[in-house]
Amino acid sequence: MKISITVTLKKDVLDPQGNTIKKALENMNFKNINDIRQGKYFEIDIDEKNEKKAREKAEEMCKKLLANLVIEDYKIIGQQ
Amino acid sequence: MKISITVTLKKDVLDPQGNTIKKALENMNFKNINDIRQGKYFEIDIDEKNEKKAREKAEEMCKKLLANLVIEDYKIIGQQ
Repeated sequence: MKISITVTLKKDVLDPQGNTIKKALENMNFKNINDIRQGKYFEIDIDEKNEKKAREKAEEMCKKLLANLVIEDYKIIGQQ
Repeated sequence: MKISITVTLKKDVLDPQGNTIKKALENMNFKNINDIRQGKYFEIDIDEKNEKKAREKAEEMCKKLLANLVIEDYKIIGQQ
């Protein structure tokens, strides 16, 4: 089972990388951009057919390694 | 309108970062992981109410800056 996860900076944490991308896009004549935030994306292929168990495992991975919960949020956005 | 985008390495492109994460997880006693791929995630807040136009703008940003189409694929995964 493949699980897709996004890890993003929490709302109140500054995102200098996102700001740089925003400026670069503005210099390329993209207007009307309010905000850009960059995050990480993971696609984990787990050898586990039970949907609930696979999800639980993915959550544990996020908590223990993939996300820094002090400044980041994670979200399981899909599975197949 | 907020548009969410993922940028991932194409299937046949090696992902050393993903492999490193996989090994780290295995060392932490997570078993049964077949594969992990890491990618980027962008949340773009565009000042544009027309859904189709916002999407088109986001696609253009991907093509011009956010993704390297030689080795990466992009996907618009949501909007709100």
